[in-house]
Amino acid sequence: MPAEYLLPLLRSDSQSKIVLLVMDGLGGLPVPPADLTSLEAARTPNMDRLAAEGSLGRTVPIRPGITPGSGPAHLALFGYDPLHYLVGRGVMEALGIGMQVAPGDVAARGNFCTLDTQGLISDRRAGRIASEEGKTIVEALQGIRLDGAQAEVRHVKEYRFALVLRGAGLAGEIEDTDPQVAGAAPLPAVAREQASQKAARLFNDWVAQAQKILAKQPKANGLTLRGFGSDPKLPTYQEAYGLRAACVAVYPMYRGVSKLVGMDVIQFSGETPEDEFAAAASVWGDYDFIFIHVKKTDSMGEDGNFAGKVQVIESVDQALSTLLKLKPDAIAITGDHSTPVPMRSHSWHPVPLLLWSARQAFPDNQTQFGERNCAKGGLGTIPATDLMPLLLAHSGRLEKFGA
Amino acid sequence: MPAEYLLPLLRSDSQSKIVLLVMDGLGGLPVPPADLTSLEAARTPNMDRLAAEGSLGRTVPIRPGITPGSGPAHLALFGYDPLHYLVGRGVMEALGIGMQVAPGDVAARGNFCTLDTQGLISDRRAGRIASEEGKTIVEALQGIRLDGAQAEVRHVKEYRFALVLRGAGLAGEIEDTDPQVAGAAPLPAVAREQASQKAARLFNDWVAQAQKILAKQPKANGLTLRGFGSDPKLPTYQEAYGLRAACVAVYPMYRGVSKLVGMDVIQFSGETPEDEFAAAASVWGDYDFIFIHVKKTDSMGEDGNFAGKVQVIESVDQALSTLLKLKPDAIAITGDHSTPVPMRSHSWHPVPLLLWSARQAFPDNQTQFGERNCAKGGLGTIPATDLMPLLLAHSGRLEKFGA
Repeated sequence: MPAEYLLPLLRSDSQSKIVLLVMDGLGGLPVPPADLTSLEAARTPNMDRLAAEGSLGRTVPIRPGITPGSGPAHLALFGYDPLHYLVGRGVMEALGIGMQVAPGDVAARGNFCTLDTQGLISDRRAGRIASEEGKTIVEALQGIRLDGAQAEVRHVKEYRFALVLRGAGLAGEIEDTDPQVAGAAPLPAVAREQASQKAARLFNDWVAQAQKILAKQPKANGLTLRGFGSDPKLPTYQEAYGLRAACVAVYPMYRGVSKLVGMDVIQFSGETPEDEFAAAASVWGDYDFIFIHVKKTDSMGEDGNFAGKVQVIESVDQALSTLLKLKPDAIAITGDHSTPVPMRSHSWHPVPLLLWSARQAFPDNQTQFGERNCAKGGLGTIPATDLMPLLLAHSGRLEKFGA
Repeated sequence: MPAEYLLPLLRSDSQSKIVLLVMDGLGGLPVPPADLTSLEAARTPNMDRLAAEGSLGRTVPIRPGITPGSGPAHLALFGYDPLHYLVGRGVMEALGIGMQVAPGDVAARGNFCTLDTQGLISDRRAGRIASEEGKTIVEALQGIRLDGAQAEVRHVKEYRFALVLRGAGLAGEIEDTDPQVAGAAPLPAVAREQASQKAARLFNDWVAQAQKILAKQPKANGLTLRGFGSDPKLPTYQEAYGLRAACVAVYPMYRGVSKLVGMDVIQFSGETPEDEFAAAASVWGDYDFIFIHVKKTDSMGEDGNFAGKVQVIESVDQALSTLLKLKPDAIAITGDHSTPVPMRSHSWHPVPLLLWSARQAFPDNQTQFGERNCAKGGLGTIPATDLMPLLLAHSGRLEKFGA
């Protein structure tokens, strides 16, 4: 029996409330002169109290040594192994810029490229045109109409865009049109299976119309499509865990991934941690599980801004009182991945994890939430996909397995 | 290659002796005022010496967050992943009350229920009749005779019983007869495959005869059967590890699970740890591996009896000298799962593990056997199924893999 079949079998009725608070890119590396990480340097009295009462540990987002993007990293935290539940890059790209990808839609990532007079690719990234230029070109493609589906195209950055087709009878098992080398012509979209043939034909129609519009562009006179995919039809939180789940997030990517697993996305105004915790409070009675996403820890890490990352963590800690007044039965505070300030990028390092429960967390003599304490914590270093079973256990939502 | 194929390939001849000492439900949570667990509070000079010379760690019985029953938890300690080797609940229930389940037998769990005048279930647990009453009713069912098999029925507790059929051509792929809701009639036993049709027909015969006997009962005038299953035909200890293995246990459940993996069950008188270690000593020359099971740590945990659990652990420690005089080459001391005193129930928490070997345990500077030291121990936190390979390695019973 695969392990993921186990949780639905063991489901126990409960009124308990679970909070998953994700500070994006939380994990860090120490920085001189104090040789502390941002999390270690931050004054976090609320989290430290939770650490003292609860357990610390670390999560490995994907596999050791693998640096995750935010999409797979969140899937893992939600309990879905991203190597098992493959979500097309096109879907993630579209979700990341706030496009809808509903069941039946097919999404793809697009690159503008430069074609020579024979139609062969001379630059796969269209000379890395500026974002402003890319945006203008994408606007010119908005008028494309298809017979049997609607196309939505949106600019991402520089030479990159995302394309979503919506209509009946579409599926996304389609080969990339990017030949991956200069000197070759863009390939047609070819379906890998019968069910995806209609979508492949429509993508080819769209590309043909786009080519005409782009023909006079000096650099971006061609395009390729990659990472075709549909909504991956993940088991929902209700199906997998019996949880009514809500998402409180400011950025579209995190709202999109939450929707993939059946969470309701809560609308609210403002974008501070205080605003987010207030939004959680406003729907507290309606849900069993609330996922709250704080973005700016990651942004500060990407910027190499040590003090900024400290400040964001401290602002979350201050606002935490609001959340704790709601008296969750179990709360996990962690990141989706590490974004160490000295690296200015996502990394593969295990991510600090704090697990607190009203009664049953094993105390491990750790009294401060920080990377090095987490490495010594009682939860050990665990796959991120183990967090959901632990949260369910600590909130009294799992029956015993076997007699 | 699945990892379980590896051990038989690497088997090395050895005269070494291995002891697996399981204190049932050993793991705990700290309790005020001293903020210690029972294991941490107990005076255990013998175990502490072994801890100092050996390595500490923790086992995860099934998967993180999953609270195990004793059956699957022991299978895991014996090296059989309970999610791979599924043992029917009926088999475990029968073993748990000391019934034999040999290859070819089919076992089921039974519930008495109350039927209304139309034959629909009005109470799935027959008003939770007292154990004395349930026992009397089961005795009335002893006379049932079947054409082509023998039926053994035995009372478990209150409204519950176990039923084992023995005969040629039986198999246990049979649907539950319990409709799981009141207001419905009990279902017939339906085979899921050709090979189980004879057994299904015999179970239905048995139920029909039982119904007549129960008809005049005020509460327990009906019954349902669940968890049909046969001996799961696990590889034996001899096949999997090349070990002649013996079980020293007082309670039938643990003897039964040991038999499933081909251990010989040692008969002995008394039921203290001292008696059990003496029993191990009496057969020491005949076996390579001895599993010794101490039940009362779990009972005390279930009773919420902190001092009682301390006392049981101390009594095991005192008796341990007897065992150590036999000079085992490797010894593991652990539990099958945690039964924390404040929870009064089995739990999902990782289980303390002490691994000592005559020469080769990695010392980890831990000098006291307790939950928090185990969390810092050199073995780390490992799946319970990893213990047997470690014991084989530490007793010189595994060759090198590859050149």
